[in-house]
Amino acid sequence: MTSVDLRLNAIIDPAVAGGRDIVDLARCVAAGGATLVQFRDKRGETRAIVEEVRAIKAVLTPFNVPLLVNDRVDVALAAGADGVHVGQADMAAIDARRLLGATAIIGLSISSTAEAEAAPIESIDYAGIGNVYATASKQLPNPPIGPEGFARIAAVLRRRAPAMPACGIAGINADNAGAVIAHGADGVAVISALSLAPDPAAAARILRGIIDGMLAKRGA
Amino acid sequence: MTSVDLRLNAIIDPAVAGGRDIVDLARCVAAGGATLVQFRDKRGETRAIVEEVRAIKAVLTPFNVPLLVNDRVDVALAAGADGVHVGQADMAAIDARRLLGATAIIGLSISSTAEAEAAPIESIDYAGIGNVYATASKQLPNPPIGPEGFARIAAVLRRRAPAMPACGIAGINADNAGAVIAHGADGVAVISALSLAPDPAAAARILRGIIDGMLAKRGA
Repeated sequence: MTSVDLRLNAIIDPAVAGGRDIVDLARCVAAGGATLVQFRDKRGETRAIVEEVRAIKAVLTPFNVPLLVNDRVDVALAAGADGVHVGQADMAAIDARRLLGATAIIGLSISSTAEAEAAPIESIDYAGIGNVYATASKQLPNPPIGPEGFARIAAVLRRRAPAMPACGIAGINADNAGAVIAHGADGVAVISALSLAPDPAAAARILRGIIDGMLAKRGA
Repeated sequence: MTSVDLRLNAIIDPAVAGGRDIVDLARCVAAGGATLVQFRDKRGETRAIVEEVRAIKAVLTPFNVPLLVNDRVDVALAAGADGVHVGQADMAAIDARRLLGATAIIGLSISSTAEAEAAPIESIDYAGIGNVYATASKQLPNPPIGPEGFARIAAVLRRRAPAMPACGIAGINADNAGAVIAHGADGVAVISALSLAPDPAAAARILRGIIDGMLAKRGA
């Protein structure tokens, strides 16, 4: 399992960027303290996405922040990203691992205890559990699970894989991030709370402060 | 350059299959004489596409007909397809070659003499030139080039790469395939003329007869 710092997982999606330049956005969130960046583009043409991911990778390298690509193993390979995040309908993690190799970071979305029971734990490095809260960033088929739902799903996963890092995802912001960490998350995945913030770097700094504070409290 | 038999390049697309089972459709066109099959799915989820491509590959193997995937190098790698066909907005052929290796088949869509001048001939095994005729299979931004346009673009390509196989694409059927071959094509790419035919295997046999006859006549 490749070690991954999940504390502040910033998801960058051109469809949820308020018209901002996504490369500049990636730089800002990394400068503010994002520990992992995931690029998600469900609509673009492959060639343009590869170029975008290359440009984002270049700005993240000085920060030593890994870059994952949502779903697209081909884009990750072509652009030299650090791995992928796959959903339940994306490429199977076992296939992604075979194509990306042992040192790549592979994350998996998990939305229920059944998916936690079935998760290919030998092929993944972390889990994104949600949707924790309601969100406007993505059409979500299921009602929010809340931080209690996160804890319930994480418990199933950790019974199978005690050291598996897990972050909460969906609708997480500075007001509710602490509750997610308090319920056992190693971090939070954030989209609009950073991408649509007036100052994404400042928003990242504030979130990191809350997350690190709550992790320290939990650890104490 | 990997050798490729372009005579009858059947493109299978769930969006242009009239509700037919695409695996069965692939089997039928191969039984009827398709020399190359390309699977194109611009809408499906990655996991489902990988499974479809695996199933199609399994039915094509006994016919010794190679299977290409449109655009998606990740799907081709995961499913063990023989290569990819890329458009001008898809992954760059040089990147696809690096990921797929020397023995994969890589085809490129070319729609103008400028694209023929710029084509990465060292990275591709064949060209699909079009759109030759009007078609309902795909939204096309440019007017049809006709068989004369095919000949004009192929001449530019072959000045740079004399042995590069090229097929015509778009709106090609049993009525007009002969004209495309007469203008120098090594074969034709066909979608609805096979996929929407009452009997796709019979339609493939008829097309192969026309193509082989015209190639023999041209060679004589």
